[in-house]
Amino acid sequence: MEPLKAAIIGGTGYTGAELVRLLHGHPSAKVSLVAGQSRAGQPIASALPSLRGVLDVDVVSFDAEQVAEQADVAFCALPHGASAGIVSSLRDRDLPVIDLSADFRLQDLEAYRAWYGAHLAEARFGQGVYGLPELHREALRSADLIAVPGCYPTATLLAIAPLVKARLVDPQNLVVDAKSGVSGAGRSPTATSHLPECSEGFRAYKVGRSHRHISEIEQELSALAGQAIRITFTPHLVPMTRGLLSTVYMSTTAADVDVEACIAAAQRFYADSPSVVVLDEANAAPDTLWARGSNRAFVSYSVDRDAKRVIAQCAIDNLVKGASGQAVQCMNLRFGLDEAAGLDHPAHWP
Amino acid sequence: MEPLKAAIIGGTGYTGAELVRLLHGHPSAKVSLVAGQSRAGQPIASALPSLRGVLDVDVVSFDAEQVAEQADVAFCALPHGASAGIVSSLRDRDLPVIDLSADFRLQDLEAYRAWYGAHLAEARFGQGVYGLPELHREALRSADLIAVPGCYPTATLLAIAPLVKARLVDPQNLVVDAKSGVSGAGRSPTATSHLPECSEGFRAYKVGRSHRHISEIEQELSALAGQAIRITFTPHLVPMTRGLLSTVYMSTTAADVDVEACIAAAQRFYADSPSVVVLDEANAAPDTLWARGSNRAFVSYSVDRDAKRVIAQCAIDNLVKGASGQAVQCMNLRFGLDEAAGLDHPAHWP
Amino acid sequence: MEPLKAAIIGGTGYTGAELVRLLHGHPSAKVSLVAGQSRAGQPIASALPSLRGVLDVDVVSFDAEQVAEQADVAFCALPHGASAGIVSSLRDRDLPVIDLSADFRLQDLEAYRAWYGAHLAEARFGQGVYGLPELHREALRSADLIAVPGCYPTATLLAIAPLVKARLVDPQNLVVDAKSGVSGAGRSPTATSHLPECSEGFRAYKVGRSHRHISEIEQELSALAGQAIRITFTPHLVPMTRGLLSTVYMSTTAADVDVEACIAAAQRFYADSPSVVVLDEANAAPDTLWARGSNRAFVSYSVDRDAKRVIAQCAIDNLVKGASGQAVQCMNLRFGLDEAAGLDHPAHWP
Amino acid sequence: MEPLKAAIIGGTGYTGAELVRLLHGHPSAKVSLVAGQSRAGQPIASALPSLRGVLDVDVVSFDAEQVAEQADVAFCALPHGASAGIVSSLRDRDLPVIDLSADFRLQDLEAYRAWYGAHLAEARFGQGVYGLPELHREALRSADLIAVPGCYPTATLLAIAPLVKARLVDPQNLVVDAKSGVSGAGRSPTATSHLPECSEGFRAYKVGRSHRHISEIEQELSALAGQAIRITFTPHLVPMTRGLLSTVYMSTTAADVDVEACIAAAQRFYADSPSVVVLDEANAAPDTLWARGSNRAFVSYSVDRDAKRVIAQCAIDNLVKGASGQAVQCMNLRFGLDEAAGLDHPAHWP
Repeated sequence: MEPLKAAIIGGTGYTGAELVRLLHGHPSAKVSLVAGQSRAGQPIASALPSLRGVLDVDVVSFDAEQVAEQADVAFCALPHGASAGIVSSLRDRDLPVIDLSADFRLQDLEAYRAWYGAHLAEARFGQGVYGLPELHREALRSADLIAVPGCYPTATLLAIAPLVKARLVDPQNLVVDAKSGVSGAGRSPTATSHLPECSEGFRAYKVGRSHRHISEIEQELSALAGQAIRITFTPHLVPMTRGLLSTVYMSTTAADVDVEACIAAAQRFYADSPSVVVLDEANAAPDTLWARGSNRAFVSYSVDRDAKRVIAQCAIDNLVKGASGQAVQCMNLRFGLDEAAGLDHPAHWP
Repeated sequence: MEPLKAAIIGGTGYTGAELVRLLHGHPSAKVSLVAGQSRAGQPIASALPSLRGVLDVDVVSFDAEQVAEQADVAFCALPHGASAGIVSSLRDRDLPVIDLSADFRLQDLEAYRAWYGAHLAEARFGQGVYGLPELHREALRSADLIAVPGCYPTATLLAIAPLVKARLVDPQNLVVDAKSGVSGAGRSPTATSHLPECSEGFRAYKVGRSHRHISEIEQELSALAGQAIRITFTPHLVPMTRGLLSTVYMSTTAADVDVEACIAAAQRFYADSPSVVVLDEANAAPDTLWARGSNRAFVSYSVDRDAKRVIAQCAIDNLVKGASGQAVQCMNLRFGLDEAAGLDHPAHWP
Repeated sequence: MEPLKAAIIGGTGYTGAELVRLLHGHPSAKVSLVAGQSRAGQPIASALPSLRGVLDVDVVSFDAEQVAEQADVAFCALPHGASAGIVSSLRDRDLPVIDLSADFRLQDLEAYRAWYGAHLAEARFGQGVYGLPELHREALRSADLIAVPGCYPTATLLAIAPLVKARLVDPQNLVVDAKSGVSGAGRSPTATSHLPECSEGFRAYKVGRSHRHISEIEQELSALAGQAIRITFTPHLVPMTRGLLSTVYMSTTAADVDVEACIAAAQRFYADSPSVVVLDEANAAPDTLWARGSNRAFVSYSVDRDAKRVIAQCAIDNLVKGASGQAVQCMNLRFGLDEAAGLDHPAHWP
Repeated sequence: MEPLKAAIIGGTGYTGAELVRLLHGHPSAKVSLVAGQSRAGQPIASALPSLRGVLDVDVVSFDAEQVAEQADVAFCALPHGASAGIVSSLRDRDLPVIDLSADFRLQDLEAYRAWYGAHLAEARFGQGVYGLPELHREALRSADLIAVPGCYPTATLLAIAPLVKARLVDPQNLVVDAKSGVSGAGRSPTATSHLPECSEGFRAYKVGRSHRHISEIEQELSALAGQAIRITFTPHLVPMTRGLLSTVYMSTTAADVDVEACIAAAQRFYADSPSVVVLDEANAAPDTLWARGSNRAFVSYSVDRDAKRVIAQCAIDNLVKGASGQAVQCMNLRFGLDEAAGLDHPAHWP
């Protein structure tokens, strides 16, 4: 069988780089085109030196016609806002698109406007299927516009969803304390990512109700719970490159909800999910190191019955299961491939 | 005036090393003796190479008589259990003792036994004054046995205390999500501190009701609130050497509690506290880097009025305000010195 | 074709873990057995949590008979001394062995004794073929005992060999200043690898003529140069997990040796080597980050003609091209597979 | 006695921040004015959050008249080029100036032009006394324009000078392999300092004869040796914030030069130098961690007599002994204070 031809738009940022790496090693797909604005005309290895001697492709300027001709599927790894128009132009040519931006994740245009401002392709707003396979596997098999979630929502939803679904927790009293490696902020150098000012410090950011990913977490949780959910969410910056841990605090719905019930609910929920590993010991503590470079998510549970409180955690690699690996997982579903194809390698140790 | 002569028992661990550093730079005190088991007979610089060319002292074996003769005050920087007997032997000789272990922090012997096991100097159990100056300043001025808090309790209590005192929050619904640098685990190398397995990962540990410092946080909060308090507490390990951030989630007691009220309560509470900086912007995010090497604590507040939820944070250096700096602060109070003496240097930047 | 069955002896250390990872992703091989002393009887994921959900194998105690029955090839990832007897017992059963220890790298028993002490399988001493494919490709195709080089020799020899071979440099005046990540010291926690004492410091170690790898570098260089070579070698510890950079200073043999001549010599020397990338710009500076997790080596050259001095550099991942990846590369050669099979993935970026 | 009033021009970069920290803790000096272009009008703590609660000063725009009125001495912590004119305007007003830029370090205008381009205050070129107290102590006592060396020259010269002075080594065959923490590149975020692309990699930069500090190393060595010296110098970037290690390779002048002779020469050379610690064990390896935050330099020696080669090392904190601490040391000398005043604190451990 011919390998699937994949175009990557925005191929020289971090999520683009991961797409290149993962598709390069994919048994049934190959990178047919890499588009990027600032590096157009240069070999991709000038932007991604790790590709020297591995992949000899020149970056091109984006041209929708060319992409539609040379690819069976397009991945858009662009910032929100920049993505909407490009996705739209590719959908106009009927190309299946897997978008890693926030532009098509939300279903409520007012919410989009409130969190992000004007949407630049309103005609297509709402057409995206939320690309979290563990929640939307069936819909993804036939989706032509897939909106891959951000890293915080992925880890947070994977930790919570089984418990909300099984009605073990009260979805109205959720506190999410999340921690991400620095690569989550992208490739542009800033004071925040300047090694001397971040490698030996730890802090929160966007404290209060200000991180945009709150909107998609609430959207998905509300759908799962059948009621409008409002969460408290505090992201923190960890002095490391990759990895994201979400620690979620919830109240149980009944005094007899114990950790075994939570673990069992998660095991049922993820029975068919090759990317999720449910830790079956009470009070386990997944380490983001276990996931680095892999598409795996590790979830764990702890219950304080006297306080009727559950602590759920999920550890992922923010650039893989939190972005590009998940995008490939969506591609696999959409094109009838094995869901884990090209994604079954473990993390490096160490 | 003669400088105060300070003995340091356990001077070659991390908190001991910080005591040596801070007392070396103190205007009214000096290190008169350093005792340590494994390094006895060696120059201190063999254990602490940063002291080569700075301090030329030999480590001695502990001998209570010798300490009582050569010192006006003793700092014990030993693990719990190991500390009780030594503290007791020094108190028998009437020497004021500042203990950095957990052995004299609790007032309830049953609680001590439940969290730590048998106490090895029961006759003196309960004699310690909890060495958090911001809560016990007056008692510390005349205390002969000072039990300096751990790093997690220091940051957590400093964030919460003003709000509990001002009755702005419900003390019964407290979630503490805390993050510490690796030096908090001490100087003995373990898998947990092995650079290849910790520098690029982030994880929780002692999830569930298992970290011993929960007991002292609950003791102090219960005293402040006038009712028995049970908290949820999850410590995490940050891949950096120093620094501790405690993020605390609480419910407000009334719909009109806003962030200004919280900040004002903290400013009042800390009006006379040279070591605490209250950030006066809503949604500020203190960075542990700001405190590294200094005795300062930075506290901040954020309120989601619709959810009636407060987020409080406190950033400290776990080895300074979370241990040795605080011990020196207690010494200053006990001996009538300026509370900030020897402690007013800022953190390095960067 | 049936995949090659590979046994890994010492599978839970770092080089063992990398062997498991690389063979798991190899198109023509599979891990048939993992032996390990301290973890025998446990699932491999208990030692290598990154394998949870990926590889479900129990670690077994080493038994030569069992290994010979269940494997087509054995990899020994044990310390020197511990390896000799085990390798010998497997060779007694005619199993091809790829040894990552130093036990069979040297050809001169006196040299072995001088650097390492008594050899524990003298009868087989000298039977190893030095497993650096770029120097010994043909011999490796039929070798039954392959002695994979250490990380320092790999990077150092790859940088130097083309110039010595082409007689562009004087091999008698070599200074090697090498820098390694902390994983090179293995998995046992020590003060040297304790994050608080190594993550923010840089230093040399084994200064002077004391690092054992000097012996194999000198052996191989002497063979290449046709004369006995004595080098100066200083290893340094870099506060990062993986990566090794060797910076080598040499004198040119003639005033007209320029950087183009050096680059051209390297390009010729590595024309058939899929793992080596010769940087073709003068004064390039390869970053170990480019190689992390991959089997690639990046070499570069700089020449100061007025001083008649060459600076050569080579960057590798110490655990891959410097150990386990190179071992797999040797296996590929020995079993007639494509030399790069299972080794063509790039480094993560970032 | 009134404390010396010090103005800091460029007070919000890293060397400026260290000057503020060190002078804040100085027993005989105080910061009377901080000038900075981008932060003028703001409290200094907005630029240096570590100063919140410590120092309450507003940054001002530079005005030579105002500085001359309010200060007894000015420190210029500006980039080369930007410094020349400002230094000149202050010297016009007769204020003693301690300049941390390269503008007044060289004595040969042609050399300045070759390495840096046009000099912007030629009338004063050559008036600077090179601010390395260990080489120019006497001249500094009466210098009105002090040109503090860069971090690489400081560590390199401190390692080499005693041996060149004692004629133990041949100054014509010097290889300097130097390694610096990331703060050496300053406060502006770049790809080079972007944590995801530098925290897990190691590499050289400015390979070949391109780093500007070569010029001052050669100037000082030539003066010491009484002959023109040309060195080979390769700087590397270490993934840590602070610290600089210079490893220098030299040939001995005679077969009987041993390590004891080198150590003895250094001990003599530094007998009156409070900032230099000569490690008196052969083959010692100073760690930059020992120096972090302190003004101490640790030097060590190793000799391979068969190869007639010396390896000398020097570890410093690049921002302290390599910049701001050294500047304060120069101030102490110039104003008749104890050379170590305000500089005798040790590094943090850890």
